[in-house]
Amino acid sequence: MTKVLFLNGSPRNYGLTYTLLSFALRGASSVGAETKLFNLYELEIHPCLGCLSDNQSSCMYPCVIDDDMKKIYHEVLSSNGIVIATPIYWFAPSGVVKNFIDRLTVFENMIFINGRSLVEGKIAGVIAVGNDGGAVQAISSIISALISMGFSVPPFSFCYHTSNEEPNDNTLLDAFNVGRNVALLAKVLERNEIKWYDTKRIEEISFIKEEVKTICKLNKEINLLKRNTIINKLILNGNAISPLEEVKNKNVRS
Amino acid sequence: MTKVLFLNGSPRNYGLTYTLLSFALRGASSVGAETKLFNLYELEIHPCLGCLSDNQSSCMYPCVIDDDMKKIYHEVLSSNGIVIATPIYWFAPSGVVKNFIDRLTVFENMIFINGRSLVEGKIAGVIAVGNDGGAVQAISSIISALISMGFSVPPFSFCYHTSNEEPNDNTLLDAFNVGRNVALLAKVLERNEIKWYDTKRIEEISFIKEEVKTICKLNKEINLLKRNTIINKLILNGNAISPLEEVKNKNVRS
Amino acid sequence: MTKVLFLNGSPRNYGLTYTLLSFALRGASSVGAETKLFNLYELEIHPCLGCLSDNQSSCMYPCVIDDDMKKIYHEVLSSNGIVIATPIYWFAPSGVVKNFIDRLTVFENMIFINGRSLVEGKIAGVIAVGNDGGAVQAISSIISALISMGFSVPPFSFCYHTSNEEPNDNTLLDAFNVGRNVALLAKVLERNEIKWYDTKRIEEISFIKEEVKTICKLNKEINLLKRNTIINKLILNGNAISPLEEVKNKNVRS
Amino acid sequence: MTKVLFLNGSPRNYGLTYTLLSFALRGASSVGAETKLFNLYELEIHPCLGCLSDNQSSCMYPCVIDDDMKKIYHEVLSSNGIVIATPIYWFAPSGVVKNFIDRLTVFENMIFINGRSLVEGKIAGVIAVGNDGGAVQAISSIISALISMGFSVPPFSFCYHTSNEEPNDNTLLDAFNVGRNVALLAKVLERNEIKWYDTKRIEEISFIKEEVKTICKLNKEINLLKRNTIINKLILNGNAISPLEEVKNKNVRS
Repeated sequence: MTKVLFLNGSPRNYGLTYTLLSFALRGASSVGAETKLFNLYELEIHPCLGCLSDNQSSCMYPCVIDDDMKKIYHEVLSSNGIVIATPIYWFAPSGVVKNFIDRLTVFENMIFINGRSLVEGKIAGVIAVGNDGGAVQAISSIISALISMGFSVPPFSFCYHTSNEEPNDNTLLDAFNVGRNVALLAKVLERNEIKWYDTKRIEEISFIKEEVKTICKLNKEINLLKRNTIINKLILNGNAISPLEEVKNKNVRS
Repeated sequence: MTKVLFLNGSPRNYGLTYTLLSFALRGASSVGAETKLFNLYELEIHPCLGCLSDNQSSCMYPCVIDDDMKKIYHEVLSSNGIVIATPIYWFAPSGVVKNFIDRLTVFENMIFINGRSLVEGKIAGVIAVGNDGGAVQAISSIISALISMGFSVPPFSFCYHTSNEEPNDNTLLDAFNVGRNVALLAKVLERNEIKWYDTKRIEEISFIKEEVKTICKLNKEINLLKRNTIINKLILNGNAISPLEEVKNKNVRS
Repeated sequence: MTKVLFLNGSPRNYGLTYTLLSFALRGASSVGAETKLFNLYELEIHPCLGCLSDNQSSCMYPCVIDDDMKKIYHEVLSSNGIVIATPIYWFAPSGVVKNFIDRLTVFENMIFINGRSLVEGKIAGVIAVGNDGGAVQAISSIISALISMGFSVPPFSFCYHTSNEEPNDNTLLDAFNVGRNVALLAKVLERNEIKWYDTKRIEEISFIKEEVKTICKLNKEINLLKRNTIINKLILNGNAISPLEEVKNKNVRS
Repeated sequence: MTKVLFLNGSPRNYGLTYTLLSFALRGASSVGAETKLFNLYELEIHPCLGCLSDNQSSCMYPCVIDDDMKKIYHEVLSSNGIVIATPIYWFAPSGVVKNFIDRLTVFENMIFINGRSLVEGKIAGVIAVGNDGGAVQAISSIISALISMGFSVPPFSFCYHTSNEEPNDNTLLDAFNVGRNVALLAKVLERNEIKWYDTKRIEEISFIKEEVKTICKLNKEINLLKRNTIINKLILNGNAISPLEEVKNKNVRS
């Protein structure tokens, strides 16, 4: 059965962060997912010790730190998706949420141990709540981290509320859809065993490399001319020599 | 047939942005997707005029601006996914890429016209290349915009290169996987007609609202005690009255 | 005497985060500043409890939490500037650094207690180190938080290193200049008692409001015409009615 | 005389972006600064062509592109500070604002031509306005770019408004203070000729390098023990060998 985990990063389980997370949870159960909610502040979650900076291969699941993440690790592994709700502290996730994210490194770093992130293919959604700005900045940074760990992110899978006033029905519906969409994408993907990080394709890379190099070389010859045309269109009164004229024989980079 | 669009936001079609985008394109075609690549700098793409700030309903597809976005709009609509490659200019996408993204508003704003974003359910990947930092910041801001428009984002669907040196094979494989994963998720989702933004559920919201309110009220009573316990643990020498004591009868918010 | 505080957010005091922070420290002492360095991981810093969400006025210095921040609060208050060095964990500051930042809220929230942030006018610099991307995203989010608390940020006051290799001399010089510039700006500003957040000017606001409203009204009349000209230039084949025609009598917003 | 430049990145000069920018302008003139405002949408500002990626030394002031930036370049050079106001398009600055920022590269890149950014020591403030989220993300990315170019950022030097409703007096005061603080810091700094980017210090770097290396080596020996203590405190049931035991003789990095 599809299972989605809901993580409350607020020190309160009765405020608006918790409220929006609850709507997401209802969204997930509305499409038949099993749901579970944890309040991160009630758990003992130590900061990541960054072992991998000493030695890449020393960071592996299970983590050396013996705290309540043990339980959460287990819950994440047995879930198809997670929804993280964070209060917005200084335009960013709370330190508690950040510690939680940092501790997920043991899952992702398994790529370097046995070739596969333990959260590859799971689904994620994010909620951020505060009475000031910074919601999207907080959400963006969580989402790019999760994608980089191997999570998928469905459409409309984040929402936020940044005011002292009660959220209106549209915001509550947005939160509902965050949970619903995480569950829906999880349902679709659990029927499809996709290997998202395909290291075997590394052999093809060298062939492609030659092809792309040839195309770039050709393009460069043609395009330097075209670029000159663009630049010349812009240089009406010609206050300088086109920077491209001198480039032709150089080792062009980016 | 699954079709993925590749958009080069660099002024060059022979540099490293173009190179990594080419690898993504090969990744998509390696799993059978049809591919097409456009160099945004070769097109005339005017800045968004923000019509919707004057009048929400005036921003609708087709856009009032008659330029080369006409062609690109058509290509996006007929594709299952897009991969945007941007050079990193000042830790962010180039102005040309930003103008392209701004101009996608006509697709998303159809939610307010007829209830559905025209890019809902399409898939997105992002590549950023520069010789300094800022890659992830550039990528994060593009990704959260696209998710908010209705795109899905598969695992490992962004990659970057931030150095003057040639990218190594791992980076090229990352780029390859960006295109491959966009195509793979597109394939899975085109077999599943999911309505991701479900406005009909708005009717359920009021029921849930009552339930959640009741739970929060209960939680608040129990939790204030628990929160006091947490705080008391921390207040060893008690330099102040617990802020929670005075909260109990107030209208607590976030 | 000008005093600058250096905070190491890495679990190690012998790695590259610490190394770059040490160069920043030398930069500060090279222009005569007194310096002090703390390793945040060696201190007990509890997460912020978000008391102000229950009650805005309950968050005030001294913080209710009795841990090692007591010492750091004191050091920040007696310093003219701080330099925060963070390892890059998931494209963001480490959870330990984030907890430190969250705990600075007691300084800033004094605006609502007695009208002045306790860190107003102090100077800040930031360093981020990792072996992957995300440096600028991590730095940007710290910097905007600090500016919003009342810190000033001098030119070239952040630097980063994102590779496994030893930083080159330019990077070390960048780090040196971060500390030097924080100290230099601190020196200049301690000779100038500036009240940066001037709430008294609120009385002027209503006068200005009327003036600006009148200008906007005039501009709107003139500019709608001009905007129509811009749009008409763009609408070559006229696929729609100009969105501006219908706007004229509406209550235009943003 | 202190001069501050105000740049409106909204297509409208009668909306809320313009309104808040006008308050910032009044803030600057309230402390005696000369002010000038430009609407970027009324100017022809072409996208940056990224010449420096072909050849680092080809990007120098004056820019090869001959458009209205000529006028703005001149205005920036003759000003002590700038305030950029952007509408929030997709949680980021508008494409027009981004093009403006990208085009400032010719100022900064003079570091590589003659050792000094042409905007070094100038002051910056930022305003972002929209009817949805993303303000802080938009602002953060502009601010880190400007600091990296050589601008200073005073306390409370950004503000935002993200709603359809009229901004309240506190927001207007925030905008007023953005302009006021940019002007105030400009006044202080124009009396102090500070060389912020001191390349001459590169000679000291090698001496410091040796010292820091020695300290790190000592710290590593002591700290590995300490780190073991921290980790051992955490490893209650010891599910793994401490990652630090095996580190001792390795070439530790970050």
